[in-house]
Amino acid sequence: MKITILGAGGMGSRFAIMLQQAGQQVTLVDAWDQNRAAIKRYGIRARYLDHDITVHFPIYSPEESGQLNQPAQLVIIFIKSNQLQTQLEKIKALIGPDTYVLCLLNGLGHEDVLKQVVAPDHILLGITMWTAEMTGPGQVTLVGSGEVELQNLKPAGEAMAQRLVKVFNQAHLNPRYSHQVTYAIWRKACVNGTLNGLCALLECNIQALGQTTVAPELLTTIIGEFAAVAAHEGVNLDQQEIYQHVAATFTAAIGAHYPSMYQDLVANHRPTEIGFINGAVWKKGQHYGVPTPYCALITQLIQAKEQLLAVTD
Amino acid sequence: MKITILGAGGMGSRFAIMLQQAGQQVTLVDAWDQNRAAIKRYGIRARYLDHDITVHFPIYSPEESGQLNQPAQLVIIFIKSNQLQTQLEKIKALIGPDTYVLCLLNGLGHEDVLKQVVAPDHILLGITMWTAEMTGPGQVTLVGSGEVELQNLKPAGEAMAQRLVKVFNQAHLNPRYSHQVTYAIWRKACVNGTLNGLCALLECNIQALGQTTVAPELLTTIIGEFAAVAAHEGVNLDQQEIYQHVAATFTAAIGAHYPSMYQDLVANHRPTEIGFINGAVWKKGQHYGVPTPYCALITQLIQAKEQLLAVTD
Repeated sequence: MKITILGAGGMGSRFAIMLQQAGQQVTLVDAWDQNRAAIKRYGIRARYLDHDITVHFPIYSPEESGQLNQPAQLVIIFIKSNQLQTQLEKIKALIGPDTYVLCLLNGLGHEDVLKQVVAPDHILLGITMWTAEMTGPGQVTLVGSGEVELQNLKPAGEAMAQRLVKVFNQAHLNPRYSHQVTYAIWRKACVNGTLNGLCALLECNIQALGQTTVAPELLTTIIGEFAAVAAHEGVNLDQQEIYQHVAATFTAAIGAHYPSMYQDLVANHRPTEIGFINGAVWKKGQHYGVPTPYCALITQLIQAKEQLLAVTD
Repeated sequence: MKITILGAGGMGSRFAIMLQQAGQQVTLVDAWDQNRAAIKRYGIRARYLDHDITVHFPIYSPEESGQLNQPAQLVIIFIKSNQLQTQLEKIKALIGPDTYVLCLLNGLGHEDVLKQVVAPDHILLGITMWTAEMTGPGQVTLVGSGEVELQNLKPAGEAMAQRLVKVFNQAHLNPRYSHQVTYAIWRKACVNGTLNGLCALLECNIQALGQTTVAPELLTTIIGEFAAVAAHEGVNLDQQEIYQHVAATFTAAIGAHYPSMYQDLVANHRPTEIGFINGAVWKKGQHYGVPTPYCALITQLIQAKEQLLAVTD
């Protein structure tokens, strides 16, 4: 399958390597000049489990890819949520009438952005529990294991989604065809919506957040807001199960981890994806007439902190 | 008048000096050992406007003052809100049936604590715009000018409140008898309830907060919550006037200032007074059935930050 991966960061590199090693024809598109230069010159240099590998790929900037005029069979999106709209616009020429687009990004509302460029029955959505760390231009560390859960947005997309499960399976990506991927996306958004914003605001890791006396009440209230909004989209979240799921991170190995929003905002002064997590719930809540004050205030505080830290794109 | 000042910090020292210079008989009570030792040995050493002065006072610990068994005519309270209950209990012996207690602390709900030890008709409340800075044990810097606004909690206390206005006037404290001190206290609480918690959370000064795009919405929402709760206590806040009053600090000289809660929490890892500001509105809101989610979340985040910074009393 001719697969284009948009975003050759940690996760994009992981999928590119694993899919190419399974015989798929992978092309990369990435907006970061230094990253493209390094990959062109050396390939992707990966610490992959317990050994080092170097894997070569054709790689283009979004602008260049637009001039290729060669629609892909599948585009997998691994860029930051807040760049989705701009970059999709630039790679429009890669997306022909037969191109499917798979979005595995964290957060809510990506399908609304995708629909501006992709026919709804060619949109595939999912979540992944794989991890990846970028250590420099063209350099990644890929350890641990993970899974992928995916589904077609519209019934007409099911054949392709099922086919993709087979392709991912050959690549050992542990895929699963989901019968309720929207539920899975909301459930994962609850994890990000509780841990990411709070750890970025309080500048702490997951475990430390979990040790504060207010954590249970914060989780309960935020998950409650997510659930109230999700119900208006036909998704009935099991709040107790999700609470347990989030609270389990406090004592697990992942507790020592600083969520990606902390990494973006506090460590690297980069823009956050708050608009696609708590910000999306706030916006949807306004649309449905559901009050979401905790999501609103968390979004506003993160936005204020972005401005105070002079974050620029 | 025999006046006991509880809390010989910056503001307590200012009032002690100005009242004693006007001929009042002032005694200090302070819980900080080093501060008492310095004042006993050297007196209070003050940078007072453009000159240096040293002023001597009798000073006791709260425990010692309890053993004096000499009720004061007036006790003025200048300790941290969160120490009010404990210290009032310790100086109970100073508060006889004829003792009046004046509380000029920022925040809400102090009268409820005072009532446990003082008869309501002997409670006087007020606010002050004077400032003071403590630079070390027994050392303060007193610059600028200020005002005091005070009133009796119950009608029976008016004679004493009026008398106090005269005493404060002789001490050049620019006092004013207030006909609606509760309004003034709520209005000032709105200033602290918007600036203190947000600047402490975002670790910025007042001006920087004012320059964020979200500041207007944050102010509006928080003041709205204060007003909704105040209305249940018969105080009808003019939200627009208060908004302007708070927003004016963004561009005034005070904008360069880090609010006291930032000083307490971020600079000195001391416990904050959040429980008497946003926390008090949240608690009162629960009592009256008024939702105050912004006050609730700000309180929870400050409490979390206190715990993360290992703040201890």
